[in-house]
This record gives sequence, structure tokens and C-alpha cells, in this order.
Amino acid sequence: MNPPNDPGKQDLAVYMTAVGRRARVASAATARASTAAKNAALRAIAASIRARRGEIAEANGRDVARARMSGLESALLDRLKLTDDYIEQMAAGLEQVAALPDPIGEIADVRPQPSGIRVGRMRVPLGVVAIVYESRPNVTIDAAGLVIKSGNAAILRGGSEAIECNRLLAALIGEGLAAAGLPRDAVQLVDTTDRAAVGLLATMTEYVDILVPRGGKGLIERLMRDAKVPMIKHLDGICHVYVDGEADLEKAIAIADNAKTQRYGVCNAMETLLVAQAIAPRLLPRLGRIYADKGVELRGCPETKAILQAAGIACKDATEEDWRTEYLAPILAISTLPGVDEAIAHINTFGSRHTDAIVTENYTTAMRFLREVDSASVIVNASTRFADGFEYGLGAEIGISNDKLHARGPVGLEGLTSQKYVVFGDGEVRR
Amino acid sequence: MNPPNDPGKQDLAVYMTAVGRRARVASAATARASTAAKNAALRAIAASIRARRGEIAEANGRDVARARMSGLESALLDRLKLTDDYIEQMAAGLEQVAALPDPIGEIADVRPQPSGIRVGRMRVPLGVVAIVYESRPNVTIDAAGLVIKSGNAAILRGGSEAIECNRLLAALIGEGLAAAGLPRDAVQLVDTTDRAAVGLLATMTEYVDILVPRGGKGLIERLMRDAKVPMIKHLDGICHVYVDGEADLEKAIAIADNAKTQRYGVCNAMETLLVAQAIAPRLLPRLGRIYADKGVELRGCPETKAILQAAGIACKDATEEDWRTEYLAPILAISTLPGVDEAIAHINTFGSRHTDAIVTENYTTAMRFLREVDSASVIVNASTRFADGFEYGLGAEIGISNDKLHARGPVGLEGLTSQKYVVFGDGEVRR
Repeated sequence: MNPPNDPGKQDLAVYMTAVGRRARVASAATARASTAAKNAALRAIAASIRARRGEIAEANGRDVARARMSGLESALLDRLKLTDDYIEQMAAGLEQVAALPDPIGEIADVRPQPSGIRVGRMRVPLGVVAIVYESRPNVTIDAAGLVIKSGNAAILRGGSEAIECNRLLAALIGEGLAAAGLPRDAVQLVDTTDRAAVGLLATMTEYVDILVPRGGKGLIERLMRDAKVPMIKHLDGICHVYVDGEADLEKAIAIADNAKTQRYGVCNAMETLLVAQAIAPRLLPRLGRIYADKGVELRGCPETKAILQAAGIACKDATEEDWRTEYLAPILAISTLPGVDEAIAHINTFGSRHTDAIVTENYTTAMRFLREVDSASVIVNASTRFADGFEYGLGAEIGISNDKLHARGPVGLEGLTSQKYVVFGDGEVRR
Repeated sequence: MNPPNDPGKQDLAVYMTAVGRRARVASAATARASTAAKNAALRAIAASIRARRGEIAEANGRDVARARMSGLESALLDRLKLTDDYIEQMAAGLEQVAALPDPIGEIADVRPQPSGIRVGRMRVPLGVVAIVYESRPNVTIDAAGLVIKSGNAAILRGGSEAIECNRLLAALIGEGLAAAGLPRDAVQLVDTTDRAAVGLLATMTEYVDILVPRGGKGLIERLMRDAKVPMIKHLDGICHVYVDGEADLEKAIAIADNAKTQRYGVCNAMETLLVAQAIAPRLLPRLGRIYADKGVELRGCPETKAILQAAGIACKDATEEDWRTEYLAPILAISTLPGVDEAIAHINTFGSRHTDAIVTENYTTAMRFLREVDSASVIVNASTRFADGFEYGLGAEIGISNDKLHARGPVGLEGLTSQKYVVFGDGEVRR
């Protein structure tokens, strides 16, 4: 079925329902698929990406040219562009996912019960995974790889600016699936530029088991209002580093520098630095100079500002708004406070439950921070930048969740699965 | 703050928001609470239930008298009544939960990564758990016990028919919490009979982390439409037993008998029996006689009906509606079909993803059934009646979920918790 050319609401709903139905049917086949078949599909797609890299670059070139003409902002234009390296990374990424252990069918924790039955849990796919993303056409391949490996079916909704490249990539995926004996419908690209398609995906609970929005805050806020389908998502990454009074000064400087400046536009970068009063006079001047040299604008509480200015380092006034802001830019809010109690309270009040770190040599303080900070990742003596599926050893990442249910923190293959109970009996009945 | 006497929508919203806010504040304290304090609270509540059993019986007696006057149906009246045994079971149940291991603070799977950081997962409470239930006042105690042990705060909304007894039990819980140094607000009873309170609980995402509706289908359907808060719930328990052509006949008879007749009104009772053609002529006459003797009405497909009638056993015609019905009564739908493929297809089409069993001696058939039946519990050679938190060794049960996300199947303490990532570093930064 072709997508409607100029779809009215009615046509679009019919089209999306058909996509959903095909995905549901395909998901029964992918759930049963052998590890060998899934890996064969991934390797076949990788091979055709390499064989047809010229075509991929051309399709991407046409998307970029069109986007430039339509005045797409330069950050998005950058993300849209596929270099030779990116194309090779797509192929290599699929091969890495093929090399990961298959989570599906794993049976864990089988324990005999007093009745005689043995009860365990079997890992199974969720069913149909919908992924909504913007610009980056490589997500089409990365997401397809994870969804295939985890035995699910995918509905992909890429940005209209990448449509030509996404169509070609989807065709390669379909060929790879077919070559491995899996249904082509296991990965479908929603081939319409109508934005209402996203709203439909988010409410099709009959056909979509989980939705992964990878896009700007506007998209995610809108989906949070309307979605009926559960989501793997985070809205903000307002991440903190708290430097305790008993921190090792050198570790603190290295971590606070890295967490802010290693990359600015990422969700696990530090946005607010919290400093214990006991260490502020030794820490802030040295750290402030590093930030100043790198062009990071500092916004501090009065105590912070006084220390920095006394050391000749510029610092603006922080307002409460700063404690709630994800800058994604070379700007840092700093608060100097009495100690770990106030730091935990600040983080649990103003943070976004994403990733927060403490620097301390005190064992008891570290353990309290780990337990009481209510965030998806809580880190002792390392940079917040480590909150990442690859750095955590998941082998892949579909997104980062700051919800508490289902998946929390970086989400790899396991986040696209569920566990059901399996019972091994020998004729037992309930008394 | 007292609940409004005759609350308008506005007053009720103000009251519920205040309840939510207090729960959120209390949840920070319960999350930090020591295992010893939580267990002390549970044992203190158990002691005062035993000490004040007379008062509890009196309050329950007043509820029962009022409910009888207002014409409550007899099944609900039965559930409302607390016998001496039930009161003792409430106290004993709390002591059992106190004896369970504390899930909170458990750190699992800590593994070193190439960067040097060690990454693991720590089990933490969800926060605020709201539980909505009808009639049975013992749920007030059972639910409070699980919520306290799992380090959460509870908002309990019992039925108006049980209000006097629930008020008394809530007071005992508050005293027990206070005696153990925990906030009384850790368990709050919504003390209004306004039904709109349930709708508010289901949408207060800021104050409620998870909602557990334990009630009739009407309540759950309504909540599924309106709820913004995630739920642990199941709507139907349309459970199947499939007797394979290679089943052991004696095991099959024992299991199919037990799954249907051990108790009728429970969600894990069998509602549809599927029989392979190869075994139907030997199985159905013997099993049919057992059901007939116990007064179970049989509704079969034409093939089933022919076999049963030839053996002189009454059988009505089953319609498609029967395959979709949870009788919760001495009625059984029976379909005779070619084999395991058709059985799996029938279950995945008409079932409710709750609990389904196969009886077979064939290893490969058993493994296929385990893998391909998409239900929360899949059972080989044992009764569906085992799908239960206590029988599964969870030590407790807050409900049974047939959702795939978060908790699936019988839900114990673990279903009221989440895991966050914890990272143990030594000054590592991201390169």
C-alpha cells in the first residue's frame, strides 16, 4: 500500500493503521526468528550499505541541497550530512550489533517452589517499536539494527528533510531482511511527510508497544501530552557535579572540566556545578580559569561570584531560572553550598533525574549520595559524560530514559525486551 | 487537612493535591529508611491489629450493617466481612512481609568497563504508589505492608462501603509508622467517598508514580481511558489449557480439572480448554464427566460437542463470543483443534496475555509453546492456578500485570521498585 500523496486526515489514518497491522504481523515472525537469521539480516544490510555507498551519498546530497534551499538551520544541516565515515560507521555498527549476544529466549532465575513447579523468567521482544527522529539518516540504520536484533518489528518515522536517503536505506534494510528469510515488514519507514503521522503513532496502542522519540524538546513535550503508547524518552538533561568538601582537588578539577567542556550539546553534559563551601576557595579559582580559557560563561550564586571575582574571573548572577536550565552550550551555573545535604536537596529539586555525580573521598558521603539522589545515573568520582550505553557496556543505545518504569538510564537491547514467567511442571495442581 | 465534607470539584482537587504533596514528601523519608525501621513499623502494626481485633470487628460490623441496608450485592457483602481468621491473617501477613529480604539498596551486576569505571544497578523505590480497591478492608493492611517494605509512600483509596474499618486500620498504620520513627504520611487513606477522587489519582503524575487498581473491569476500563499515571493492572484473565496430542492423559485430566474447578471466580482459572484432535476422543469423555459432576456448563465447537454428546455429556454450542469471555463461573468453552500451531494462534488471538498452559510430553512442542505464547505466564504441565505471587516465590503479591512494560505477571515487592545505574569511579573522565 502506498502512502497517500496529499493525505487528508482520513487517508492518513487508513495508511498508518495498515502500517501498524503489517508491523504487528511481522513482529510474530521476528519474535520467533533464530539468532542466525537475525544476524544474517544485519550483515546483509551492512554489506549493501558498503556496496552502495555512492548511491547513499547521492541521495543524501539531494536531501542536503533541498534542505539548504528551504533554509534549514545550520546545526540541523550538519546533522543531516552523511560523510564517508558516517556511512562506514552505519555498516560497522550493524556488524557490532550482530556480534552482541541475542537477548531473546534467555531464561533466568529458574527456582523450584514448594509445590514442585520450577518458575523462571524468559526474555521476549516487546512487539512493535516505533521510533521518531529528525535529520540524522544514520538513525534509520542504527534503530533498525537494534530492533531486528531484539526480535521486534520497527516503524520508523524520520524527518522529511532526510526522506530520499531514508527511502534508500529502508529499501536496503528490506532486501537484507528478505535475504535472511525475515519479513520485509519487520522494518517499515513511514513514507509521508505529514506531521500528523507522529500523533497517530503515539496513540495506536493496538499496533505500537513502545515509542522512542529522538528529537527536540518540542516534539517530546507534545508527545507527553498526547501519547497513549508508553515511551522511552527524556525531556531534559540538567546534570550536576557536586564537589564535596572532602573531594580530591585534582579529581574534582578533571571531572568538572570534562563534564562541562568535553562536548557542550549533549544531554549528559554538566549544566550546574555544586561546590561545598569548605573547598570552594581552593577549587573555584583554578576551575574558573579553565572555563574562562575555554570561553564558558559562568553564572554563580553570590558566594560563588565573590570568590571568582576576587580571583579576577568574570561571573554573572545566577537566578532560579538558571538552576532549571539545560543550556546545551558553553554556559555553566554554579552554586556554593554547605555540604552534601544541600547538594542532594538541590539536585532532587532542580535536576531532571538524568545523571548526577559527586566528587568525594568520604565513603559515607559517597554512599548517601548514591542512595538518595533520585536520578537514572548516579556517579561517584567520574564524569557525567559516561552516562551512555556504550560506556556502560550495553553494546548499543536506543536512547536514555529518565522515567522510573521499564527502562531507566541508557537503554540498550534489553530495553526493547520484556520478561514473562515460565513455569516447568510435572503434572502439579493447586491444592 | 480534613477532607471536604461535601466536596465540590474544586475542594476535592485541593484535598487530593494536598494528599499527593504529603505523600511525595513522605516518600523521601521512606526511601532512606533503614530495613530495621521498616520492619519495626510492620511488626508494630501487626501487634496493634491483634491487640485491637475487637474494635476492628466492630467497625467492620458497622460497615457490613450499613452495606446490607443499602442493598450491596451478596458477593460484595461476603468480601466486606472480616472474620477473626481474616483479622489474624492481616497481622500474620505483615510479619511475613517483615521477614522478606529488603529489596531497596540492593546493588547488582557491577562490572568494570574499559574506561576504568565500574557500572552497576541499585534497586530503589518508585516513590508514591496509589492503590484503588473495593470492599475488602484487608487490602488496606496488605497494600500498606508492601508499600512500606519497598520504601515507597502509599495513597490508599478503599471502597466507601468499608470506610469505618479502613479509617481504623489507617489509624493503626499511622501509629505503627510513628512508633518506628517513620512519617505517618507514608500511608494515607483518601478519606472521601467522592468517586472523582479516583480520577484525580490517575492523573496526578506529579505526585503519583504508579497506580494499582484492584477492582472490577468497569473501574479498570475507565482508568485505562483516562489515566496518565502508569498502572499495574490486568483487565481480563482469559486463561487457556492446551492438551497436546502427546500429553500424558492423567496429568492432562488433573490439570484441566484443577485449572477450572479449584476456584471459579479468580483471574487465573481456565476459561477455555483447547484439545488436540489426536487425544480428544480419549480425553473429553473422562474430563466431561468430571465437569458435569461438578456442575460446570460446557460450551464446545462442533467436534467437541459431537464427542461429548456421544459419551452422553451435555454440551452447548460455543460462539466466537465464548472464546473472548472471562466467565469467572462454572462455565467452560472447549475447542478441539489439529495441534499446537492452532492452539498458539487461538491463544494469541483470543487470550488476554495473562496465563496459559500446555500439557505435553513432547520437549520440542513444550519449548515452542513457552516461546511463542505471548502471555505473562506460560506454563508446561501444571495448572494455570499457580500464577500467583506466593506460588511463584515472590513472598507477596500486589497484583497481576498483563502489560509487557515494567512488571509482567504476578507482581511482588520488586514491582514497586526501579533500578538506577550507579557508577563507581576513581577520577575517570571521558576522552
